[in-house]
Parts: sequence; structure tokens; C-alpha cells
Amino acid sequence: MNNTEFEIKLNEYRNILETSLTKRTDQPGYKNNRVCDAIKYSLLGGGKRVRGVLTLAFCDALSGTYEQAVDFACAAEMVHCYSLIHDDLPCMDNDDYRRGKLSCHKKFGEATAVLAGDGLLTLAFETMVHSCKVFDDMELALEGIGIMSSSAGVLGMIGGQIADIQNENRNMSFNELLVMQDKKTGALIKASCCLGIVAAGGDVEKFALAGEYGTALGLAFQITDDILDVTSDKETLGKAVNKDKARGKFNFVSEMGVEEAKKTAEGLTGEAIKTLGRLENSEFLIMFTKSLLERQN
Amino acid sequence: MNNTEFEIKLNEYRNILETSLTKRTDQPGYKNNRVCDAIKYSLLGGGKRVRGVLTLAFCDALSGTYEQAVDFACAAEMVHCYSLIHDDLPCMDNDDYRRGKLSCHKKFGEATAVLAGDGLLTLAFETMVHSCKVFDDMELALEGIGIMSSSAGVLGMIGGQIADIQNENRNMSFNELLVMQDKKTGALIKASCCLGIVAAGGDVEKFALAGEYGTALGLAFQITDDILDVTSDKETLGKAVNKDKARGKFNFVSEMGVEEAKKTAEGLTGEAIKTLGRLENSEFLIMFTKSLLERQN
Repeated sequence: MNNTEFEIKLNEYRNILETSLTKRTDQPGYKNNRVCDAIKYSLLGGGKRVRGVLTLAFCDALSGTYEQAVDFACAAEMVHCYSLIHDDLPCMDNDDYRRGKLSCHKKFGEATAVLAGDGLLTLAFETMVHSCKVFDDMELALEGIGIMSSSAGVLGMIGGQIADIQNENRNMSFNELLVMQDKKTGALIKASCCLGIVAAGGDVEKFALAGEYGTALGLAFQITDDILDVTSDKETLGKAVNKDKARGKFNFVSEMGVEEAKKTAEGLTGEAIKTLGRLENSEFLIMFTKSLLERQN
Repeated sequence: MNNTEFEIKLNEYRNILETSLTKRTDQPGYKNNRVCDAIKYSLLGGGKRVRGVLTLAFCDALSGTYEQAVDFACAAEMVHCYSLIHDDLPCMDNDDYRRGKLSCHKKFGEATAVLAGDGLLTLAFETMVHSCKVFDDMELALEGIGIMSSSAGVLGMIGGQIADIQNENRNMSFNELLVMQDKKTGALIKASCCLGIVAAGGDVEKFALAGEYGTALGLAFQITDDILDVTSDKETLGKAVNKDKARGKFNFVSEMGVEEAKKTAEGLTGEAIKTLGRLENSEFLIMFTKSLLERQN
């Protein structure tokens, strides 16, 4: 797979996601509804779609169809988007910009943003229920919902978010930082990979592989985020920079410096790619993993 | 069924819910976790458990077992509790008290309260996935998750909440008020009844009955809430009173006055009870419906 073929494939995945997410939020009753306007504003037409692409690509790697994976992939994007909307709230990270435009609460007000996040989380589960219409086996739909609810919950993503809030202006050990980020960013990335395996009807071995890959990628992804927070600018990143330092937050760069952080992200990316060696059609995923290390936003 | 027998049964249902909700939030990893402390604070040891009781009682009326209904009943209580936590936030209704104690954000701070609500909503779906371990048929678990996600979503409960926010300081038609409350309060009450039918494996006819009952009860319940808001006091109600008037909100009492509102609630309660006539073991539900009209908080 050369770079052009990779870009074509990536755009194909993103187009599938954009079309499906648009369809899901264009149901009767979603018109002239302020909370739905806020959901569409935040969900559509932006974002790298990393999580949704991972779900589609893992399903694809196991020769599953788009149709099997697309509900799960949309759900992963919805859960990610809801977490950003709530994370940007004044009582949380208080961010005015996201993906190069006003954050949800700056555009629609705080109350609507809270409800838009709630609505997206709920819609993610509604969307996953819909997946059972595609599968022959309802067990797969339920397994997916189980993975998503535990990964996004208080022992997963939310657990990482609360640790992150408590992280402000205190010293965190490096191990605490690892555990926090493995939950805050890693849990949903891992889940997105595993959901692709589930959608394709993959076996336990493939499921474990996706989990290992997701763990390594999740950390590499977060470290790259921490690096971009200090090396990028607001225009490129689409959101404020130097945020962690301003809030007295301990992160990978504050702990190890930019150069060491880069090396660590490279090492983890290598580990993730090594894991993919146990997968047959892994060409796209290998190139995608590399591209995430080199991303500018 | 006399009053004593009714009270015994009601306490039995409430004890089942309290025990199960406690168990669900007492998993490994829930200790020394601020967001879990906030969840337990808001979820346990308070509330009338109207929604959970309805799920258990409808399942019971169809000779289903507690075991079949308890995960759905807990999920209904979790979704209700999350909606209260978010509703009480400063950017929403800004309420300092709930169920006779400080509201979640007053006790734990806003950020933790946002995450506690998110965590409870996610836990509700995780809990419903667990129900498939009880049922022989996974279809029931998925049906339940489908009902909950659509009822709690932007076309249901959240749709009602956004309409309620937009209701402040503007004139709403009576019909708009009905539609709003049918979603804001009615959708989850209706879902709770229907979930009991699904858990018991009831047929379409029983499902429709539960929906009709829930619609009438939901409105009666909301009208009673509006009445208590002006006739009760903070101590009895466990939360602030005269809230709607202070916020310029149109409600059933502002529209029709206390006396007419009481008559309407009585009429709707009568309708709800009439619906129960098509159910076999409806004694408890009839008395429960009456008790909700006469409640003091």
C-alpha cells in the first residue's frame, strides 16, 4: 500500500463515518431542536475520526464488512465527541475552541452543551442497539454494548477524567500518570479497536491483539497530544495550546521533556505496529499508526 | 390488598432496589474514587424509587421474577438520578438541595457532578447488558436497552429538558407544555413500566397497556410535582420550593391554578388506574398509583 492508496482508504473510511453520523442525526424530530443542533455542530464535519477509523479498519482487517462495523464505529465517535463537549465546559477544562471553531458551550450555552453531551452518549447506545439488525447474532451487539459501557464508564474513560481533574496543581507519580492516561484516552481507543474485532466476529486471540495494540497506541497518541500542546499553535491545533502548564497539570512532556517524550511515543508506536504483525491484512493499520505519530493536530 | 400489605410490598421493592443499587456501585475499583463517591452519594439512600418500583411491579404483575426485572429497574433509577444531578447544575436549574441534602455539585463540585451524571448514565447501560445473563433470550436485554436509549435520548427525556430550558421567560402554549412534560418526566416513567413488561416476557398488548398507563401517570406525576412546588415547604420536599415561578417558568399550576391542577391530576390518575383494569394482578399498582397522587414529596 503506497501513500496515495493509504490516503484513498483513509478518506473512504472517513466518508463512511461522516455519512453515517449525518444520517443518524438527521432523523425525524431532530429538526428545530436546539440540543440536536448542538449535537450536529459538535459531531459533524470535523475531527480526525481516529476511533471510528480504528473500528472500521480492524473489522476490515478481518474481512468483515463496513455494514457490520459502522454502528459501532459511529458509537465510538459519539462517545468521543460527548467526552470533548463535557471536557470543554467551564467547570472542567474551560476551553473556548475545539476543532478550529467555538466549543459547544461557547456556541450554544452551557445548559445545551451539558444536554448535547448527554444526548450523544445516549445516542451511542441507541446506535449500537441498531447494530443487531445487521448481525445474524444478537450476542455480538450485546458484546459491543458491554465493551463500550465498561470502557466509557467510571472504571474507564470517566475514571481517567476524574483523575485528570484531581491532577491539577499536585504532584502525580509517573505511574499514576500512566494509569490515568491509559483510562482517559486509552480506554476508548482500545474499545474502538476491539469493537472492530467483535463486529467482524473475530476470535479471542484477535480480540487480545486489538487490546494490546490499543493500549500502546493510546499512550503514544496521548504523548503526541502532550507534545503538540507545547510545540504547535492554536491555528494548526484548532484549540488552545500550553493548556496543561497553565493549569499546573503534570503530563508526559512536563515529566520527561519534549525529546524524551518523542522517543517514548516512537517506541510505543513501534510496539503497536509489532502487535499488528499478528494480523493478516494490517497494511492500512500500520500506515495509520505511523500517521498518528506524525500528525500536526 | 390492605394498606399494611401494600406498605410491606412497597418496602420489599424498595429494599430490592437499594440492595441491588448498592451492590452495583460496590464493585472493585469503586473505592477511593471521587466520582464513585459522588455517584453513591446521589444514588443511594434516598428517593422514592418510583421508576424502579414500576419496573419491578409490572414484571411482578405478569408473574415475572425480581431477578428478571432488577437490572432494568436499577437502570431506570440510575438514569433518573443522572438526570437530577445534571438538572441541578448551576447552568441548568441551579439547585442547592435534593432529597433533603446538598445536591451533588454543592457537595462534590461541578466537574465531579458532571462526571458522576455521565458515569451513572453509562452504568445504566452496563447494568442492562448484565441482564442478558439472567434472561434465556438475549433479545429481551437488547429490547430493554433499545427502549431505554430512545426514551432517555434527545427525542425523549433530553428533548423535554431542552424544551424546559427554552421555556424560561417565554409564553408556552398548553399543548407545548403537555408535549414537553410528556418527554421530560413521562418518557422515563413510561419506559420504566414497559421495561417491566419486557423483563417478564409480556406480549405486545401488555406492552401497549404499560405505555398508556405510563403516559397518564407521567402527566399526573408532573402536575403533582408542580402543585407541591407551590403548596409544600423545603423541609417536606427536600428541595427548594416555588422554583418555577422564580425562574418565570410556565407550568400546570401557573396555567390552571392549584385547584384545577389537582382535578386534572386526579382525572389522569383515574385514567391510569382504569388502564390497569386490563392487567391481572394489578392490586399493588393501583394502590401505588393512588399513593403518588397523595404524596407529600
